[in-house]
Amino acid sequence: MTNKTITAPKGFLASGIRAGIKKSGKPDLGIIACPTGATAAAVFTTNRITSAAVQVSREHVLGRKVFAVVVNSGNANACTGQKGLRDALTMCRLTAEQVQADPQEVLVASTGIIGEPLPMNKVIPGIAIAVKRLSPSTSAGLDFTKAIMTTDLRPKQAMRRLTISGHNVTLAGTTKGAGMIGPNMATTLCFITTDLAIGKALLAKALRQAIGSSLNRLTVDGLQSTNDTAILLASGRAGNRPVTRMGPAYLRFAQALADLCDDLARQMALDAEGATRMFKVVVTGAASATDAAKAARAVADYPLVKCAVHGGDPNWGRIICAIGSVQVRLYPQRLTCKLDDLTVFRNGAPCRFDPKRASRIIRQTCHTITVDLGAGRHSDFCYGVDLSKDYVAINADYHT
Amino acid sequence: MTNKTITAPKGFLASGIRAGIKKSGKPDLGIIACPTGATAAAVFTTNRITSAAVQVSREHVLGRKVFAVVVNSGNANACTGQKGLRDALTMCRLTAEQVQADPQEVLVASTGIIGEPLPMNKVIPGIAIAVKRLSPSTSAGLDFTKAIMTTDLRPKQAMRRLTISGHNVTLAGTTKGAGMIGPNMATTLCFITTDLAIGKALLAKALRQAIGSSLNRLTVDGLQSTNDTAILLASGRAGNRPVTRMGPAYLRFAQALADLCDDLARQMALDAEGATRMFKVVVTGAASATDAAKAARAVADYPLVKCAVHGGDPNWGRIICAIGSVQVRLYPQRLTCKLDDLTVFRNGAPCRFDPKRASRIIRQTCHTITVDLGAGRHSDFCYGVDLSKDYVAINADYHT
Repeated sequence: MTNKTITAPKGFLASGIRAGIKKSGKPDLGIIACPTGATAAAVFTTNRITSAAVQVSREHVLGRKVFAVVVNSGNANACTGQKGLRDALTMCRLTAEQVQADPQEVLVASTGIIGEPLPMNKVIPGIAIAVKRLSPSTSAGLDFTKAIMTTDLRPKQAMRRLTISGHNVTLAGTTKGAGMIGPNMATTLCFITTDLAIGKALLAKALRQAIGSSLNRLTVDGLQSTNDTAILLASGRAGNRPVTRMGPAYLRFAQALADLCDDLARQMALDAEGATRMFKVVVTGAASATDAAKAARAVADYPLVKCAVHGGDPNWGRIICAIGSVQVRLYPQRLTCKLDDLTVFRNGAPCRFDPKRASRIIRQTCHTITVDLGAGRHSDFCYGVDLSKDYVAINADYHT
Repeated sequence: MTNKTITAPKGFLASGIRAGIKKSGKPDLGIIACPTGATAAAVFTTNRITSAAVQVSREHVLGRKVFAVVVNSGNANACTGQKGLRDALTMCRLTAEQVQADPQEVLVASTGIIGEPLPMNKVIPGIAIAVKRLSPSTSAGLDFTKAIMTTDLRPKQAMRRLTISGHNVTLAGTTKGAGMIGPNMATTLCFITTDLAIGKALLAKALRQAIGSSLNRLTVDGLQSTNDTAILLASGRAGNRPVTRMGPAYLRFAQALADLCDDLARQMALDAEGATRMFKVVVTGAASATDAAKAARAVADYPLVKCAVHGGDPNWGRIICAIGSVQVRLYPQRLTCKLDDLTVFRNGAPCRFDPKRASRIIRQTCHTITVDLGAGRHSDFCYGVDLSKDYVAINADYHT
């Protein structure tokens, strides 16, 4: 079977184990290693309160090479003060020692409950075991993915292949969901590997753009978390001449990366906490790019729209209500709203339409809500998910 | 029994009937009349898309006197184009004819489903019946309240009495809930009557301030609706010399009005769609008033906080996460968070506390979350409600 995990690109090893951080006994510690050292790029949450791991990785990613990424789930190591910072550094140091690298050449990421100290008595032996299990196999890649999951029901992975100057290049990525997800930041934990040889600045640019139009366009809860991190490692093992300028090779790689990230974002949406379906909100005719993004997000975040989607209910009035309540330029008498290609509201007045057809559209795995503001030429989009009773059940009972 | 309805102040009649607008057959049309003409003030939604009723009442309230307010539930008459506007004007005209007033001396309000034409074949005969039933009785006041309810489980009413220069003055108010409620506007439909004699400008000022610190500080869904309207009618029948300046009489009236509105806001919170409890978020130590309001609202609107409150779960990490994700000035190392008087997070580090005690605090009908940003001297608050499975059930099945 084709390897679609993060070990698919040449030059990467992975592992995922049960360290005992999660009370459930599920996998909770994973490592990605690149023995030859990888060029690395990362984007982090824009939350003002960041986890210890984010603070440490933000520094470490500035270095020339990254040899490993160590990740734990079950504990966010956020709001944990000085001890938290020491613990995150210890995770880097222990991993570094065992893969023969410097601590600054290791990145760290955490996800889970906020405000509880990391159980280092579990983490320390866990790292030793995880390093021993490092392997380039498909199953090792999948083990890593399982180790970063929290309330996810399904592992999320994507892989893309392309040819660059006659060399086969592979990209592979994995993310975790499934709640505390808002746009305008890296969103969640996301790890992407590639064997392309590419300069650090271009790698960072490609990642920023790909995340910007994928994970950063997905909202589940509306706000970004304290821990969001997306890391892209390039081993350079594909054999291509290093990509160092914005030519066709870069653009093809960037496109493949964007496509991979969009795939991961959609997988996250469909496995969001309690979600049964997703939707894409497209806003056109906006006076500015900011207006377009703001309006799309207002619709995707509005609980009443999310409930209507859950009920398969073509209650377009709630869409218009959301649009009207954000500060964007619009002309009420030019407003138009469509569900896929079915117009339900045109130039400020309701249209006759078959509610059964509208309901069928909404009940698809993913449908598109398009709103035209009639105020300009800008457009943007946002992915949203329905709001179900299961979302409440998952989040009312998470801690206690 | 004391009359606590909107007919309690001298000079008002009310009625509420079943016109057949609601498919459920529940009461859906109500009238308040002031045969001697009332001084009126109103605040309306800040949504850019407004119902026909809001557009009409915004004009009519500018006049010298108001003789009646006609209200329907079951249909918002919003996003209904030119026909909607004609229908709202027809409601004013028919009511005016029957109470011997001009159409511009009647206000109108609507609530219910957006985007469907008002069934005038039900509304027109309904108005005739409602006018015939107008009465100063307690039961007529309660009938009005029932006629404006949508998904409310309980009627919401409040009454206050005070003495102004030896004259007994009464205020009474009623609101409807229970969803599509966000701050920064009039929020919902709210009707307040008083027999105080007072100038129009001062009446408007008192209403704006009272709503600003009560209904405008309550969030259920985060966004304002297309129909929100709060109307205050003063019959002048208390016999006092008219209040025309900002002296002690005005201040005492304004305080009673603010207190009444706060009572109504709390009743709305506790009867919000699916809500089992409410909470008050107080933000202190903010660098500006805007920062304080923004931070308080971010916490009150965050689904993960709302779910934690529903589960009685002292998951304060979600509170900090919400605070960190809005653009306000804060110092992470000075952040402090309390649940009532129990400190759970101090100067950026978690505190030891008894989780059972914390859970008991959260499970109260209303508890207070206090967050100090450590950035200045400004403070503000916001009321929020828990998010339950019932909220989803109510809103996923509302339309179809």
